[in-house]
Amino acid sequence: MRIITLTTDFGIEDPFVAVMKGVIYTITSEARVIDISHNIPPGNIVVGAFFVDYASKFFPRDTIHVVVVDPGVGGERRPIMVSARGQYFIGPDNGIFTPLYTGGESVYHLTSTWYFRTPVSNTFHGRDIFAPVAAHLSTGLSPDFFGERIEDYKKIPLPTPKKLDDGTIEGEIIHVDRFGNLITNISHELLDGTEYEIEINGKVIDGIKKTYGSVPPGEPLALIDSFDMLEIAINRGSAARAFGVKPRTPVRVRRKS
Amino acid sequence: MRIITLTTDFGIEDPFVAVMKGVIYTITSEARVIDISHNIPPGNIVVGAFFVDYASKFFPRDTIHVVVVDPGVGGERRPIMVSARGQYFIGPDNGIFTPLYTGGESVYHLTSTWYFRTPVSNTFHGRDIFAPVAAHLSTGLSPDFFGERIEDYKKIPLPTPKKLDDGTIEGEIIHVDRFGNLITNISHELLDGTEYEIEINGKVIDGIKKTYGSVPPGEPLALIDSFDMLEIAINRGSAARAFGVKPRTPVRVRRKS
Amino acid sequence: MRIITLTTDFGIEDPFVAVMKGVIYTITSEARVIDISHNIPPGNIVVGAFFVDYASKFFPRDTIHVVVVDPGVGGERRPIMVSARGQYFIGPDNGIFTPLYTGGESVYHLTSTWYFRTPVSNTFHGRDIFAPVAAHLSTGLSPDFFGERIEDYKKIPLPTPKKLDDGTIEGEIIHVDRFGNLITNISHELLDGTEYEIEINGKVIDGIKKTYGSVPPGEPLALIDSFDMLEIAINRGSAARAFGVKPRTPVRVRRKS
Repeated sequence: MRIITLTTDFGIEDPFVAVMKGVIYTITSEARVIDISHNIPPGNIVVGAFFVDYASKFFPRDTIHVVVVDPGVGGERRPIMVSARGQYFIGPDNGIFTPLYTGGESVYHLTSTWYFRTPVSNTFHGRDIFAPVAAHLSTGLSPDFFGERIEDYKKIPLPTPKKLDDGTIEGEIIHVDRFGNLITNISHELLDGTEYEIEINGKVIDGIKKTYGSVPPGEPLALIDSFDMLEIAINRGSAARAFGVKPRTPVRVRRKS
Repeated sequence: MRIITLTTDFGIEDPFVAVMKGVIYTITSEARVIDISHNIPPGNIVVGAFFVDYASKFFPRDTIHVVVVDPGVGGERRPIMVSARGQYFIGPDNGIFTPLYTGGESVYHLTSTWYFRTPVSNTFHGRDIFAPVAAHLSTGLSPDFFGERIEDYKKIPLPTPKKLDDGTIEGEIIHVDRFGNLITNISHELLDGTEYEIEINGKVIDGIKKTYGSVPPGEPLALIDSFDMLEIAINRGSAARAFGVKPRTPVRVRRKS
Repeated sequence: MRIITLTTDFGIEDPFVAVMKGVIYTITSEARVIDISHNIPPGNIVVGAFFVDYASKFFPRDTIHVVVVDPGVGGERRPIMVSARGQYFIGPDNGIFTPLYTGGESVYHLTSTWYFRTPVSNTFHGRDIFAPVAAHLSTGLSPDFFGERIEDYKKIPLPTPKKLDDGTIEGEIIHVDRFGNLITNISHELLDGTEYEIEINGKVIDGIKKTYGSVPPGEPLALIDSFDMLEIAINRGSAARAFGVKPRTPVRVRRKS
């Protein structure tokens, strides 16, 4: 049994995710297909990259991750397979796998049409290229069967926080979850202890707490969240609404003096 | 292992889909259950028929499709099983399987209460009839065990496009997806090349493009989509909002002169 | 194969549910993970308890139910495992398992950190405690391996209906489903026949019907629903909108004179 995960911006109202599963199970009945998320904001490569980078760390060796956030489908961008961290990642070469490009990766341009559903449509490579390639890979074939290695795969600038000389960290909001919690791009590794002031949209939050319940209901707080990132939240409320914040809003984290 | 798919209008907020899975796995641990969609608009048999017709084509032989869009549950309509295209379809006899009725089908009225959960409720035949029948069928029983064949099963008029003498095609919007793309009932087989004008709500779109990216962001286009249907879209936008369009809005496709 | 179900208030937009599945499959590839619902209203222990109580009844013996509606995560509340009704329930000791506490249950405080993911975060015990404990339990370990039995586990007052001397039943709405149907806390067992008047927000509904279709479209009705509860609905409409009703609204059921 090999695990194949799916991450898309297709939503779950339409049958497209199911069609990809049907294609996989038509090729092999031995795979186990797991949904990571199908609610990536449409075409949002940065959030797609963030989700897959995070979630894949909790899956077993040899897991195959299919990622279809693909606004350029049918155009020039190449279909690729990335071998990295002991797992495989299949999707478009639009930079969505940038967090995996740390030096140890092998990237293959998928050119062996033998493993595609034909005719390949212009609008649904998830069904016609990525799902069938994942299914065939899961049966134990080598990545080399699917195309030749390339070096010029696309990397995108991911929002990375800046650390200033006085220890202040300048980051930004990269994701708002369904509770209205604000996930920043500031990893827990950049922080040393809890003695910080967090500034966002002119408001200041004092210190980094351990749990949502550390403050009374309705009060704002900062904490290290399930993504292992600095998060700004309101206990049992929506920080997104309270602070009028969207993705890309700047966040500033200062050592308390 | 046999695949059982589920298509309903239950949504996924409530536990009803899970209850159907529990019923299936209580009968057999060998099935694999896959969700096609649980967001069929409530009671919308036309969209349900369209989704199941499309999605089932990508699943393996012998797949069992359970379809519960069943506004008449508890009333007179019969529970049925359809054998067609090398697969099985289980649900209410309300016309939702009309696209399968092309001549080669066998239809069974489900009367063998032996395979039902009893007492059968008046509101949830998905749990009490369709799921357990699917589970028992997946263990290898013949369809004949579940009831007698019938010939007077219900067919509904599906919206079909008209082709006029001058080559103009009159169709309609049958589905709006979560991006606001407008899916018509005009299959790619009705079209010959790309030299068409598409008229909807008084607006005219020029030609049939290959990809969403063929026009600048914000611009409308027509293309053959993942359903293999003519679709009207706005590159990175919502055609439903831009054109003020809903299901049933007429679409007219004219050869360019 | 052991079934593990997941019930949370995480939603399915974010990758957290998938991460729990990844953790489970990293420990054992033999489990089958099924979603019950991830749309419990955030932190709503009463609805969580209602869903799990209901849905679990349709799952096989030995099923393991993981329930993460956990507003107190990272605080003082204990992680527990409940053995009841021939199944297992894993989650926080915040009262969410109250419907299981009928006398035959065994409750264990999860203290064997050996079975946790470490370091245990303050915000995501679903990933770090409940999912891995479920995975290890599914491999056949005894509950005793995971901690010691406790007797002082938390019970919460669940909204229970009152039966007055004249036979009138006073209950309340406990859940509004996605169709706007109003599910009461009045079980079918409290009712004797159909000759009742149901009063809600000053409106009166006559009798208990068998099916939604028993009244014309747009008309209100009461019936015994898929939860086996008294439900107030509008045929093909939204009773929640029509009656301006929310969870906790009182309902009064009177014998017809």
